Amino acid sequence: MATEAEAAAMRQAVALAARGLGSTSPNPVVGCVILDASGAVVGEGFHQRAGGPHAEIHALRAAGERAAGGTALVTLEPCAHTGRTGPCAQALVDAGVRRVVHAVTDPNPRAAGGGATLRAAGVDVEAGLLAEEAEAGNAVWLTSVRLGRPHVTWKYAATLDGRTAAADGTSRWITSAEARADVHRLRAAADAVVVGSGTARADDPHLAVRGVEGAVQPLRVVVDTEATAVRPGARVLDGAAPTLIAVSEDATALPGTDTVHLPRAEGGLSVPALLDVLHGRGVRGVLLEGGAALAGAFVAAGAVDRVVGYLAPALLGAGPAVLTGGGISTITEALRLDVTGCERLGPDLRITAVPSTSPKER
Amino acid sequence: MATEAEAAAMRQAVALAARGLGSTSPNPVVGCVILDASGAVVGEGFHQRAGGPHAEIHALRAAGERAAGGTALVTLEPCAHTGRTGPCAQALVDAGVRRVVHAVTDPNPRAAGGGATLRAAGVDVEAGLLAEEAEAGNAVWLTSVRLGRPHVTWKYAATLDGRTAAADGTSRWITSAEARADVHRLRAAADAVVVGSGTARADDPHLAVRGVEGAVQPLRVVVDTEATAVRPGARVLDGAAPTLIAVSEDATALPGTDTVHLPRAEGGLSVPALLDVLHGRGVRGVLLEGGAALAGAFVAAGAVDRVVGYLAPALLGAGPAVLTGGGISTITEALRLDVTGCERLGPDLRITAVPSTSPKER
Repeated sequence: MATEAEAAAMRQAVALAARGLGSTSPNPVVGCVILDASGAVVGEGFHQRAGGPHAEIHALRAAGERAAGGTALVTLEPCAHTGRTGPCAQALVDAGVRRVVHAVTDPNPRAAGGGATLRAAGVDVEAGLLAEEAEAGNAVWLTSVRLGRPHVTWKYAATLDGRTAAADGTSRWITSAEARADVHRLRAAADAVVVGSGTARADDPHLAVRGVEGAVQPLRVVVDTEATAVRPGARVLDGAAPTLIAVSEDATALPGTDTVHLPRAEGGLSVPALLDVLHGRGVRGVLLEGGAALAGAFVAAGAVDRVVGYLAPALLGAGPAVLTGGGISTITEALRLDVTGCERLGPDLRITAVPSTSPKER
Repeated sequence: MATEAEAAAMRQAVALAARGLGSTSPNPVVGCVILDASGAVVGEGFHQRAGGPHAEIHALRAAGERAAGGTALVTLEPCAHTGRTGPCAQALVDAGVRRVVHAVTDPNPRAAGGGATLRAAGVDVEAGLLAEEAEAGNAVWLTSVRLGRPHVTWKYAATLDGRTAAADGTSRWITSAEARADVHRLRAAADAVVVGSGTARADDPHLAVRGVEGAVQPLRVVVDTEATAVRPGARVLDGAAPTLIAVSEDATALPGTDTVHLPRAEGGLSVPALLDVLHGRGVRGVLLEGGAALAGAFVAAGAVDRVVGYLAPALLGAGPAVLTGGGISTITEALRLDVTGCERLGPDLRITAVPSTSPKER
């Protein structure tokens, strides 16, 4: 059984892990806290970026000799494989750590087995402490490992009556500055930001992160089936972040752009093919920003893992709907969600929800 | 200055007043607490129904002789007029109350002047204690006095993407049993429940209150411009509550029904004319339950004073929108609201909001 000091340290490790969100892909976020033999915190660390040291190594370096006889709290089972960095399980053994508590067991077959390595070396290993919190903190990476595709967050901004613009197309601004700033935090935590051709054409969006200190810019992705929406001089083509344009197999790429040709599907491109390409490029977390038809295609493909809605307390009574298509024709087919959060954000509401059933059940 | 004991007593008076919601129209809700000379609570009361004793009378009866030399906390300025009951200001003087603190000053010219009566009798009078809370508790009645029309709450139930039914028209059930039970509490607090012909035709709604103990049934109102939606045998025509059918001046009323003929307006009937008729029948609080086009007509008429949205965490991607019409064509004309509440209700969210500007400014 874990002690209270261990639970507190694991809570801290979960918080540390979150600091890596958006910069560790294709790796998970991981946090680690080392307690000495008396239960005092002597080292902390988190995985900061792919290719850099793992959380355990940062924490062991901070702890130094005080790790000997101590306990390591890690949000994810320590790895047993030698990738760009050495296996953490062995590093923990070498440091003389007596006990390792990890929250989530590594589902990645390439990295798993750290627990066994530790046990074989006589280390006391416990799994599952604060597993739910640690799972939630690593939802993006765990989803990508389990499903073999990136985790997708669909973000929308709408009025209370579900409109994203007025009848004449005007939409600046439906939501508040606070809500728009929060979208930049979502972008910073994502590996790729995806929009459709309608949004690209109507808004000429920039899609890069602004105003988030230390943010790693996500890959900007425009689903431009006919290769007609992104034109030379589009803001998305500036140097602020890399940009990928997805077009149909028979469309002609805009010269000088990073373009991928994908099979067509009803009303656009194949969502699974797009996600496959992104996964292959190391993208683990996708932020889908619209528009309504592209979001509908993701819903129809069972590829929405989280919904973040910015609801402005306003009524329009006319104008485009926030979501179209989706392949749902009757109430029993509705995509049911569970609300995971509802917060005030300036004058607006931010509602977070996840599908009630897993993609495999859907 | 009010004492802490007085503030606590006023808070209790506001809570007492709320117990009358839905059964006092055309009167306001009022709560009263009497403290004796030592500051101890010796009497409580609230206005229970029009024609019955006012809150002060209930509280004075409970206090008996202990009111002499004491203080009365009342949510609304005591009345000075003799209506179906005697003037409360005089009753307080007769009971020997030394001090009266009221939260809200009575804006009703017929009843105002109680403060002056009390002062003339040598009673110490203070106004404004917890005025904001008391105003909020009496928003329906105060709005009706100030605007000369009933206060209107628009209630809707929709998915996160703003749909009230799926593409095939199915809608049972979008929201949870908890949300639907809450609608019955809204109905119980209203004097009239209003729906349009589309809702009447599609849902054959009953509109009476179920499951709320002691509820006074509201007037059921169907806006049936062409007099074609409510047919013999409609559930709204049963004996559970009174029912009023509003039809155009040139339509033929369904025999045996209480029908009012109103002037036509764009897409239906004149909303001001309807509210005028309801006000004349003593209705102070209207619950507008839909559908989308009728709600749009109320928005266009500047006659939505509160919005209560039941948001189901579900996505449909197709199906009817929650609000249509409203006369808003561009983003600067949006009806902006302030969120006053956001609560979980089972799996759903209940969002309450009021227009950011008063109807007179709109």
